[in-house]
Amino acid sequence: MKKYIMEFIGTFFLALTVGCVIAVNGGTPFAPLAIGAILMIMVYAGGKISGGHYNPAVTTAAVLRGALNLKELIPYFIAQILGATLASFVVILFTNSSTIISNDEFDMLFLIIGELLFSFALAFVVLLTATFKETENNSYFGMAIGFTVTAGILTVGTLCPCAFNPAVAFSMGILHIISWKIAVITIFTNLFGGMFAAMIFHLVTKKEIFD
Amino acid sequence: MKKYIMEFIGTFFLALTVGCVIAVNGGTPFAPLAIGAILMIMVYAGGKISGGHYNPAVTTAAVLRGALNLKELIPYFIAQILGATLASFVVILFTNSSTIISNDEFDMLFLIIGELLFSFALAFVVLLTATFKETENNSYFGMAIGFTVTAGILTVGTLCPCAFNPAVAFSMGILHIISWKIAVITIFTNLFGGMFAAMIFHLVTKKEIFD
Amino acid sequence: MKKYIMEFIGTFFLALTVGCVIAVNGGTPFAPLAIGAILMIMVYAGGKISGGHYNPAVTTAAVLRGALNLKELIPYFIAQILGATLASFVVILFTNSSTIISNDEFDMLFLIIGELLFSFALAFVVLLTATFKETENNSYFGMAIGFTVTAGILTVGTLCPCAFNPAVAFSMGILHIISWKIAVITIFTNLFGGMFAAMIFHLVTKKEIFD
Amino acid sequence: MKKYIMEFIGTFFLALTVGCVIAVNGGTPFAPLAIGAILMIMVYAGGKISGGHYNPAVTTAAVLRGALNLKELIPYFIAQILGATLASFVVILFTNSSTIISNDEFDMLFLIIGELLFSFALAFVVLLTATFKETENNSYFGMAIGFTVTAGILTVGTLCPCAFNPAVAFSMGILHIISWKIAVITIFTNLFGGMFAAMIFHLVTKKEIFD
Repeated sequence: MKKYIMEFIGTFFLALTVGCVIAVNGGTPFAPLAIGAILMIMVYAGGKISGGHYNPAVTTAAVLRGALNLKELIPYFIAQILGATLASFVVILFTNSSTIISNDEFDMLFLIIGELLFSFALAFVVLLTATFKETENNSYFGMAIGFTVTAGILTVGTLCPCAFNPAVAFSMGILHIISWKIAVITIFTNLFGGMFAAMIFHLVTKKEIFD
Repeated sequence: MKKYIMEFIGTFFLALTVGCVIAVNGGTPFAPLAIGAILMIMVYAGGKISGGHYNPAVTTAAVLRGALNLKELIPYFIAQILGATLASFVVILFTNSSTIISNDEFDMLFLIIGELLFSFALAFVVLLTATFKETENNSYFGMAIGFTVTAGILTVGTLCPCAFNPAVAFSMGILHIISWKIAVITIFTNLFGGMFAAMIFHLVTKKEIFD
Repeated sequence: MKKYIMEFIGTFFLALTVGCVIAVNGGTPFAPLAIGAILMIMVYAGGKISGGHYNPAVTTAAVLRGALNLKELIPYFIAQILGATLASFVVILFTNSSTIISNDEFDMLFLIIGELLFSFALAFVVLLTATFKETENNSYFGMAIGFTVTAGILTVGTLCPCAFNPAVAFSMGILHIISWKIAVITIFTNLFGGMFAAMIFHLVTKKEIFD
Repeated sequence: MKKYIMEFIGTFFLALTVGCVIAVNGGTPFAPLAIGAILMIMVYAGGKISGGHYNPAVTTAAVLRGALNLKELIPYFIAQILGATLASFVVILFTNSSTIISNDEFDMLFLIIGELLFSFALAFVVLLTATFKETENNSYFGMAIGFTVTAGILTVGTLCPCAFNPAVAFSMGILHIISWKIAVITIFTNLFGGMFAAMIFHLVTKKEIFD
């Protein structure tokens, strides 16, 4: 139960920051830093409790890599979606004007490439810095994970919603930041990015059982 | 005595940076980074001496969590308030024009939610990264703590004074950055956030005695 | 083979971010941070697999310092060039308008000094934080390496292309960000910077065999 | 000799970045980050070789604290001044137009308070994170030291030259960024800040011999 509470809290704060920097403090140039920072601090806070995923794509990658039991997958997903949903309602409370970016603003191919590349990078970095025996007990995992999102937003920020996270994409849907159609495409692209990361992880490391 | 001197110095520098970025260098967009950075460096400098709180809400959380003796609470508070007060006088010396943000600028509900969420997050991150057996001897605690404030200011910066710290709220009151009424509300909200963090900490961890 | 896949992936993401912040998100002031961040995270991700070079100048320095076998040099170069090339094609896909900075914009002497100084600094920092016995098992190597590039771009950003990396310079050539003549000069300057770093490394440390 | 070469290199890059962000890339808002970053990376690179001071005020503090032998003081000073001087000439080469800020721009009292506070903070953070037995083998010392300068510039940046370092103040004098009169006042204020840090260090820690 502790794990699920932690995933709920971490995803809540992540989705809250994403929602607020877009819909409340609309357009601060420091948004990529804010989102990377909140993810970093929650990963450091909850890493030893739940693994600090806050992201169904990362949870999927962790299960495929053998770092998390398959039966934890659905409870993790639920905790993450609930956290993101509560955060969305807080953001809605904070703002009356809904920000709507129509789905015509993104080129569908670029959206898929952008979301795929950085949800892959994010899950890949998580697996290599937080579930890999050779990097055990390091102090940099949270920074590496958080700054992957910062770098991703600065790299493909004009091409896709930059969720890199199905729970965040779901929250963006609730907030009308993106259309539900785009949210759904983003969610599946991100899950695929996580799966791809687990595959490549096995390619670049000796497969080892997580302990 | 060493602990109280350290808390005095750390809170002095924290309140000095907050006061200067608002009242002296008014409006630098890097203010959230500056405040997170000064907190981070002072936490790293004083962590092994006093715990590096510089914040009565964090001290309250540490006492409730069993990481600090109850009889230290009042001396810590006094050291922190004195540090913030001296910093306020230095900021007053630096500037002749007082910056006044009337309390009408904040919606009272949003102010309470904003201050509550991030004083909770701050104390929660402190407890999990600096008083939790599973994360002992990590090198990231200062970064996690400092960047919580950076993320908080970027997330709810337009909704509340973003003190997340009763000593800082007190200093903002002295500097007329916020009215005393708002300062008092902020102070109690922050203390409550700290208490809430201690509660949730016990929920997500096995209770363990700090040593 | 694992090493080469990792070098390919890391260099791909580095060149992708460089290309996108210039040619797609043209001119974001956070470009130096984005480039430093992507290098940092890939160094943390791949450090234990390939050493996390993503840079032929660093690979050259590592070989000269005795941290990498000479017979690995060419495969590393190939993996890095392939990663940078693929990234360039992704950036070309993302943008239709090619950004061309004519070689008249740089003073040739300043270009050489700027590229030399920071490709030296970069390889020097890699050798001292990631191959030096006295700093073994630290958690800061990725941050130190990434922020060297950030600092370099902010320091000599108006004087040279700020590749500090032959693979990145090659990608800049493909993207017409710089002319091929400038790309070639940059590539050789960077390789020389890496060699110089290996020399100075031996001067400031006791020579020790990497293990 | 190795120590002096390292101090020379580190101070060279620090003064180069300071000079370039002011006189070459005049006025980039990321200057505080650039300066903090270059100091951080050089501290991480050279920490195990020379202690990574690059600052006569820090060297003075280290000697008073017993972390460095008194007979090293003058060679360290010379290496640092030479590094800063060479950097100044490189900056002069890069720019033809000298930037002159007349000494009338600073209020003398504020200048002294600003430089004193943050040269104190800088040396204090160095002593507590890099020479203190309780924090031995941490991975955060470079980040704490670098970000002290970043926070300092963002806090008192409009009140003083923000050298916090006699070698940097000397370089600012050569570059006509500040007048020699202000450079000399800054130099002595910084040295005094370092001495004060050593005093307070002894107050907040049990005195222990560095080993």
